[in-house]
Amino acid sequence: MPIDTRHPREIRPDIRSGKLAGVTAGLGPGFVQVNMAVLPRDDAYDFLLFCQRNPRPCPLIEVTDVGSPEPIGVAPGADLRTDLPRYRIYKDGVLADEVTDVKAFWRDDLVAFLLGCSFTFEWALMDAGIPLRHVDRGCNVSMWKTNLACRPAGRFHGPMVVSMRPIPYQMVAKAVTASARFPGAHGAPVHVGDPAHLGIKDISKPDWGDFVGIEAGEVPMFWACGVTPQAVALASKPAFMITHSPGHMFITDVPNSTLAAL
Amino acid sequence: MPIDTRHPREIRPDIRSGKLAGVTAGLGPGFVQVNMAVLPRDDAYDFLLFCQRNPRPCPLIEVTDVGSPEPIGVAPGADLRTDLPRYRIYKDGVLADEVTDVKAFWRDDLVAFLLGCSFTFEWALMDAGIPLRHVDRGCNVSMWKTNLACRPAGRFHGPMVVSMRPIPYQMVAKAVTASARFPGAHGAPVHVGDPAHLGIKDISKPDWGDFVGIEAGEVPMFWACGVTPQAVALASKPAFMITHSPGHMFITDVPNSTLAAL
Repeated sequence: MPIDTRHPREIRPDIRSGKLAGVTAGLGPGFVQVNMAVLPRDDAYDFLLFCQRNPRPCPLIEVTDVGSPEPIGVAPGADLRTDLPRYRIYKDGVLADEVTDVKAFWRDDLVAFLLGCSFTFEWALMDAGIPLRHVDRGCNVSMWKTNLACRPAGRFHGPMVVSMRPIPYQMVAKAVTASARFPGAHGAPVHVGDPAHLGIKDISKPDWGDFVGIEAGEVPMFWACGVTPQAVALASKPAFMITHSPGHMFITDVPNSTLAAL
Repeated sequence: MPIDTRHPREIRPDIRSGKLAGVTAGLGPGFVQVNMAVLPRDDAYDFLLFCQRNPRPCPLIEVTDVGSPEPIGVAPGADLRTDLPRYRIYKDGVLADEVTDVKAFWRDDLVAFLLGCSFTFEWALMDAGIPLRHVDRGCNVSMWKTNLACRPAGRFHGPMVVSMRPIPYQMVAKAVTASARFPGAHGAPVHVGDPAHLGIKDISKPDWGDFVGIEAGEVPMFWACGVTPQAVALASKPAFMITHSPGHMFITDVPNSTLAAL
């Protein structure tokens, strides 16, 4: 994976111009990357409340003012209409377009929700010496829809999606404490040990991503996943919604370490 | 201070009937007590966003569904219209009434916001062996309006209000870590040491509450205060608002210890 160690403020113009058009892994290492969901003001109250009620899958990092594409809290001067490499446009809950700039789609009533992502806590895990096989193999983390219901809010409801990482049993406690320090990036695991308790019938067949095996001496650990809010929002078929394309995140000016709760 | 050690579920009927009509300090020790602000749905989005943007002064514990007086997340079966000892009714930002039951004032468009309060972190401080002089003296904690601006959200904006506790210097670090574990109850201090940096000109003259002195060997420590959201909401003169009366809190079924972040 190529690493671009420039400050996000220096990387953003290259994303805006299209020079950088791929996934954002490896860009601005050490800075918080976020998922994005953009909804009209009419849907924003229910979605904001849904996130407040389900902080593990939906850790809110920033909510923009109505109509403003500037995330002044985490990246003043940035423009969310141009500064992500790739976007998806949904109409009535159906994918309508995939674009590299959403200026033509922006409206005065839109609110952007930026949500913490697993990059931050995976950095914390690796920093604590915990190996992550999907990172070593350069493939996607495995994800499942579970039998854990999110607490509903207005029109939004649905199951929690989790990601799974196999962790050597002597490192389970460290993996809990290292990730728990980052509630803004899904925090502590929601389950440790038995996939069946989450309603997962075949651990070798994820709903999304790549299964990397569970070796002898490893425990499957499950964290709430940022796929949840998008899946929940789309399930309610909002008339209009913009999201980042998978892997094509927004890079904030906030260092990972400043997101630590303690 | 008389202590009523019954479970909040057993205390609530006595509050509802008027048998218990005073302040809630000492009732259901060990359970989270919360501030309440009730606003119409039209103001709820801005207030929810204000809380999301200012989690230290406005730690959201629960937001009810529109029109519902039941806080199903923290006290299923309770009724927020009757289960607080005393309420204040505000019209256009002006105190219009003080009552013991708000059934006659309830509307289908109301949303109740329950916010963590200092009782929880004061319990954590005392549990860690840290003396609190205002508790020992049975008086009110001292509070100040500061020069720290909250991040605005829609119609809501204003300065942060803080409470001050004088702490022996050898216990400052412990007071930080003990309170930081409870972000749902204002969390870590926002300032330690110099009142002038917060714009406080005379530390002996609080804006609210009682000054208890700062002795030699003590450091003034400042925590974000739950007076902030009420002051901010009232400053915007909402057409209608219900709050708890000072000290007359709602007692949840949530043990203080389960609010710990780590």
